[in-house]
Amino acid sequence: MSSVYEGPVQALIDELGRLPGIGPKSAQRIAFYLLKAAPEDAHRLADAIVDAKARITWCRRCFNFATGELCTYCLDERRDLALICVVEEPRDIVAVERTHEFAGRYHVLQGAIAPIEGVGPEQLRIKELLARVGEEGVTEVIIATNPNIEGEATAMYLARLLKPLEIRVTRLASGLPVGGDLEYADEVTLGRALEGRREV
Amino acid sequence: MSSVYEGPVQALIDELGRLPGIGPKSAQRIAFYLLKAAPEDAHRLADAIVDAKARITWCRRCFNFATGELCTYCLDERRDLALICVVEEPRDIVAVERTHEFAGRYHVLQGAIAPIEGVGPEQLRIKELLARVGEEGVTEVIIATNPNIEGEATAMYLARLLKPLEIRVTRLASGLPVGGDLEYADEVTLGRALEGRREV
Repeated sequence: MSSVYEGPVQALIDELGRLPGIGPKSAQRIAFYLLKAAPEDAHRLADAIVDAKARITWCRRCFNFATGELCTYCLDERRDLALICVVEEPRDIVAVERTHEFAGRYHVLQGAIAPIEGVGPEQLRIKELLARVGEEGVTEVIIATNPNIEGEATAMYLARLLKPLEIRVTRLASGLPVGGDLEYADEVTLGRALEGRREV
Repeated sequence: MSSVYEGPVQALIDELGRLPGIGPKSAQRIAFYLLKAAPEDAHRLADAIVDAKARITWCRRCFNFATGELCTYCLDERRDLALICVVEEPRDIVAVERTHEFAGRYHVLQGAIAPIEGVGPEQLRIKELLARVGEEGVTEVIIATNPNIEGEATAMYLARLLKPLEIRVTRLASGLPVGGDLEYADEVTLGRALEGRREV
């Protein structure tokens, strides 16, 4: 659709249409919803965006979201320093936490190796992971990348780098449906995969 | 999902999840996209919301979106004052405009009669439509509400009110797929429906 609405309406539709998973029809529907909504409701969304962008940074240690230097998990002193669970994205931490089966810390790669999309190892937080393993007395790294092609490739790559450091390197057990995303796994399946993790 | 992210992240997910058609997973995906996006991109969306809410009002005459007192169509003096096309929402005006078969003006009801959702005739801009018919020398009202239950009920209701005013009252021809929404109709179908409109 060409630009057919009053300027500010079209601008809003255009900006909404840039969001992932939002097509032109959805963008229009959301824009009209916002225009009809009470001003305070619409402003709460705008404020939430600005506030999140202003206050959220990356945890200096594990690259999860954080409001300060370190994230909730890195600040939690009850957590086992010797155990690191490596995930692709912050949302995967939430999936692992829901199992209540892991009490170590995390490392967020911020993606997976995907040559087609131009994501190589140097774009991920791999260098920082290796540094942590050296500095923090880590005895085991659990690789919890997604059980799809990119995630498996990333796991293989990490395993090759980590094995020479003489620590235990494990991968979530299969049991996860292959080809899927970690974030959609249910607690039981993901918990079982954690329990049955295997040496890589 | 319970509140598991850092405050500002969760607040953003919650606000996004209130939008129509955005489930919890989509809200999370969009939030992470915004958190990873360049600050200027995220702020452009926030600004578009605030700007649209600040500058867009309802046209005093037809209740379409407007940036001033009157909307684009009501300001356009080449448009036939004697012809009013009644639609449910501003998006329906765009659908009718795409046919290039209508050169009159519009009236936006801002909804349809839907007793189950608590929308009665008094919530719609019907009083204002009747006033316009009396004041603006209107000779025909084309009722272009959606060809679904609520739209048909609204059309019947309007026809009963308008007929005694001794004007022509028409309804878009069937040819539109019944049960659907006007906004999804293609130009040809909608154009044909306009041409073949019938007396109610």
